[in-house]
Amino acid sequence: MLLLDTLWSLSGSTMNDYQPDNIFAKILKGEIPSHKVYEDDTTLAFMDVMPQSKGHTLVIPKTGSRNLFDADPDVLSDLIVKTQKVARAVMIATEADGVRIAQFNESAAGQTVFHLHFHVIPMYEGVPLKPHSGDMADNSELAVLAEMIRAAM
Amino acid sequence: MLLLDTLWSLSGSTMNDYQPDNIFAKILKGEIPSHKVYEDDTTLAFMDVMPQSKGHTLVIPKTGSRNLFDADPDVLSDLIVKTQKVARAVMIATEADGVRIAQFNESAAGQTVFHLHFHVIPMYEGVPLKPHSGDMADNSELAVLAEMIRAAM
Repeated sequence: MLLLDTLWSLSGSTMNDYQPDNIFAKILKGEIPSHKVYEDDTTLAFMDVMPQSKGHTLVIPKTGSRNLFDADPDVLSDLIVKTQKVARAVMIATEADGVRIAQFNESAAGQTVFHLHFHVIPMYEGVPLKPHSGDMADNSELAVLAEMIRAAM
Repeated sequence: MLLLDTLWSLSGSTMNDYQPDNIFAKILKGEIPSHKVYEDDTTLAFMDVMPQSKGHTLVIPKTGSRNLFDADPDVLSDLIVKTQKVARAVMIATEADGVRIAQFNESAAGQTVFHLHFHVIPMYEGVPLKPHSGDMADNSELAVLAEMIRAAM
């Protein structure tokens, strides 16, 4: 943990270890509902409720880590392969023109939930992204998108 | 390749297979210089010459793939672990407040070089990012940053 301690102390912001009461941990425990698109022993993918574009999906490991810095390399390796699967399905389901993968570490980078996650953000020619953590999406629209992505997996 | 063909045909844009004459392939072959921060058998990391922030680094596999969609899962798994190593070193070297990891697939998503790459973008509290593919950085400044990041690896 020496490296992480160094990172924390160098960062100038308040970085803590993983907190198991975050909203994604609650989704994993089923305490908060989500529109799931993929699940296996290690990974969950579900619709972002504040999407930056139509089909914005999140991919998270079931093992808790704050972000990239404290993630187990094996967890990370598995997670990116699942993210690839999800990105392909999102691309097919949404008929997007491209996909951005984004992963934020610490508040200064835009991280708002402190459980490691990859954003899968479909991009549509000429359509600008909505702000990160902006408006809540319509629940029934997310349900339809989740179904389409599941069907494309 | 059926899935990829489907992706290509659904995308509405002109997606092609990997083209080995791209600028990152030329950097890998040593035909174009770069400010290297990390290299091993499978991976190269070097400074982005059009950085969005101080310390913006790129991490690429030595195996050619166009982007996430056609990447070999084993290559991807290895690449994200190397990206984690680089991100930690960038964070220490730059004393940034956070780090964004970004990976763009196809032009509509902002991809400009068609060889798979992860962006490691340090974020500084209150400092907005410069545009993607904006101004060229000062060469000697990149050399100093690369040296600092190498030292932190």
